Amino acid sequence: MDLPSTPPPRGATIAHLGLAVRAIDDALPFFRDILGLPVVPLADSDGARIAGLAAGGSLVELLEPVSPDSPIAKYIDKRGTGIHHMAMAVDDLDGMLERCRQAGITLIDEVPRIGAEGKRIAFLHPKSMGGILVELTEY
Amino acid sequence: MDLPSTPPPRGATIAHLGLAVRAIDDALPFFRDILGLPVVPLADSDGARIAGLAAGGSLVELLEPVSPDSPIAKYIDKRGTGIHHMAMAVDDLDGMLERCRQAGITLIDEVPRIGAEGKRIAFLHPKSMGGILVELTEY
Repeated sequence: MDLPSTPPPRGATIAHLGLAVRAIDDALPFFRDILGLPVVPLADSDGARIAGLAAGGSLVELLEPVSPDSPIAKYIDKRGTGIHHMAMAVDDLDGMLERCRQAGITLIDEVPRIGAEGKRIAFLHPKSMGGILVELTEY
Repeated sequence: MDLPSTPPPRGATIAHLGLAVRAIDDALPFFRDILGLPVVPLADSDGARIAGLAAGGSLVELLEPVSPDSPIAKYIDKRGTGIHHMAMAVDDLDGMLERCRQAGITLIDEVPRIGAEGKRIAFLHPKSMGGILVELTEY
């Protein structure tokens, strides 16, 4: 890993946590009614229906597969339901992806695309990240 | 699930994300040097050496097993490295645990104990949570 010699302009924050669930209706009551998190409407993305819940400056996203061949459905088939990915908000997504490339990290999305919140996002490949699926998104 | 009829005093936030890793030294460079997160010293906890990284108001915690019979070692044996648990900060931990009990959620820690950050914590059982391991901690 060829690490960058300079720090990024601003430290990253947790944008959201993506939870793979079989049914939003079953998972929502804990987060909405027990923890008291406000629901945030989000668009479907990557073959998943998504319920967002505001947790301070971050979101908890419940990801329910809408088709059996969606990435979330495949993840649940293989690993069961659970915490699917973590998304980190960064200042300069293109610059951060370049930092990742230079460090030898494989990207799933070489070119940023638009995520469920309407922001530019890119996923890093978990094979480069010790099995952890990390999404990067712009502030 | 018998849901509470009143909201909690204040919505929860993401206190930290616990990542199960084989070696902190391998996982740290991405978070510290590429993303630029400041390192926060944390005590060992539950048979894991922990490196904390500040991400806005939340922490990313890298959890490295210190013994082969620790919960993190067993998790890695069974599921591989990855995102192990999510910790939500709540106002009133005892009150929140009672809300969980009333909703039929099984607790791992019936009585709160002290976690790596020196705060009172309790884990909920993933069997009640669709496989998601949730820790509750006080602000």
